[in-house]
Amino acid sequence: MKIGILGTGSVGRTIGTAFIEKGHEVMLGSRSTTNEKAMSWVEANGVHARHGSFRETVEFAELICICLNGAFAVDVLQQAGPSNFIDKIVVDVTNPLDFSNGMPPSLLSQYSNTWSLGEEIQQQLPGAKVVKALNTVTANLMVNAQLVNNAHHHLFICGNDVAAKNAVRELLAHNFHWKPEYILDFGSIQSARLTEGIVPFWVGAMQVLGTPMFNYLIVK
Amino acid sequence: MKIGILGTGSVGRTIGTAFIEKGHEVMLGSRSTTNEKAMSWVEANGVHARHGSFRETVEFAELICICLNGAFAVDVLQQAGPSNFIDKIVVDVTNPLDFSNGMPPSLLSQYSNTWSLGEEIQQQLPGAKVVKALNTVTANLMVNAQLVNNAHHHLFICGNDVAAKNAVRELLAHNFHWKPEYILDFGSIQSARLTEGIVPFWVGAMQVLGTPMFNYLIVK
Repeated sequence: MKIGILGTGSVGRTIGTAFIEKGHEVMLGSRSTTNEKAMSWVEANGVHARHGSFRETVEFAELICICLNGAFAVDVLQQAGPSNFIDKIVVDVTNPLDFSNGMPPSLLSQYSNTWSLGEEIQQQLPGAKVVKALNTVTANLMVNAQLVNNAHHHLFICGNDVAAKNAVRELLAHNFHWKPEYILDFGSIQSARLTEGIVPFWVGAMQVLGTPMFNYLIVK
Repeated sequence: MKIGILGTGSVGRTIGTAFIEKGHEVMLGSRSTTNEKAMSWVEANGVHARHGSFRETVEFAELICICLNGAFAVDVLQQAGPSNFIDKIVVDVTNPLDFSNGMPPSLLSQYSNTWSLGEEIQQQLPGAKVVKALNTVTANLMVNAQLVNNAHHHLFICGNDVAAKNAVRELLAHNFHWKPEYILDFGSIQSARLTEGIVPFWVGAMQVLGTPMFNYLIVK
């Protein structure tokens, strides 16, 4: 599958590398086509790895992962051209975190409590099938659920398109070892308010536990 | 121990009854001394159960549990007299939920993201030792952790007074079967932003799971 990754930070590069290892073609998109992190990532990841502008990446891709700093995401999507996203699945991994007052972060006020970045992204890309996913775990765990508790822990997804959510569930199961029955569907993209809203707690828990390598297992 | 419960809703009555069963003396505080729920609770719970005004309840108690609707909590604390709380442990079980736009709720905007009800309560009661606890699980689970996964799941507490937090941890362990090592200390009362902030998610999870009888086990 042709997968586009928007963002060259550790999340984007980690997901990009993991998809390459599973046989996909990946383009890493960035603002500048001379982005050093992107160029060295391409060099390290072989013939199925490439790099382009945000727009080229979305044009190339059948499925797009948004791995941007939440504060800049909307601007990047406009640069990439919303019409290029039409009918494509967009996996939104972003979190609208505000670290300006130290740790743990708060949410950016415009994407907190009664609105979310996931909803904003769906609104910016009305033709896309936005699925919020993976934003509640650390990058290395995103791409290998088995790193914690033999993959017995939960992921939370939401989005307006049921078929797109099922496709993302299968993608994560086949590529990243997530157990499908541990991927809980929280309903429409409005639930991004909930799944983004727990991320400041996650950072606090990381500080308490001394590691980002953990997740929640819901027990009944 | 003499325990005061502010609030006669299901959380307050459930906690009150559970403390009575463990041999404590409990006063249930309400706005009106002819509160019907409080009177029938007293009748059902024997000689160690009593009922009073908010002020009488705080004067009576060595330890106070706040089990109020988050929207009215500050008003009630002022009625009860902040000076009556001095040097007492206050277990804050409240959540500042706003159900006015349906389910799942958001947080009341004045207690969201960069401020919390827990912090507000500590500010309103500067002489008290406020410990935020129990607000992330359903009432019946608060008072019997063994109802889920043999008590292997986590509770999150925070507060400015370390000795008070340790006393609450012991209280919950001795009375309500919480395993002390599963009660994670998130630091100062500022972390109420985090532990209140996950409650809208909890409501969404309850809808997905079809039961409120669940909790999070953090796995590494």
